[in-house]
Amino acid sequence: MIDLPLTRALVELVLFIDQSDEEVVDPDAAANCMHSLAGGFDRLDGQQRVEIAELLRVVASEQRDASSRRRVNDLVHELGLSA
Amino acid sequence: MIDLPLTRALVELVLFIDQSDEEVVDPDAAANCMHSLAGGFDRLDGQQRVEIAELLRVVASEQRDASSRRRVNDLVHELGLSA
Repeated sequence: MIDLPLTRALVELVLFIDQSDEEVVDPDAAANCMHSLAGGFDRLDGQQRVEIAELLRVVASEQRDASSRRRVNDLVHELGLSA
Repeated sequence: MIDLPLTRALVELVLFIDQSDEEVVDPDAAANCMHSLAGGFDRLDGQQRVEIAELLRVVASEQRDASSRRRVNDLVHELGLSA
């Protein structure tokens, strides 16, 4: 199974884009990128969205600190994957 | 199957990080992020790496222009996924 490794990789990049200082990643560009990502997920069917949401929750549970766990769990909503 | 949608999403973020102007994404931070991503893939087993490489080639073939196709195909090597 590579779903989980792919989701871990995706989360790593999302956190880099979304949590870097504004000198590192331009905030407007980051917001556009996240919006585009959510748009891509929006075109998936319901079952696919549910599966990705579940994987994100697994990756969230793997995070070491509470702040990162919360941040990754929040992605489910931000990416339009919540039921 | 969500492998392909996850890989498409991953490629979208990699291209944003790696191809944005330096005013948008700091080049050193981008290089570190890509290095960390490759490190994560390096911990997968051979079969997983082969599967991800195949998915990246599918996503490459979906790109509209030759430059993007080449760029995504190059990721297979840059991320240490080539045989």
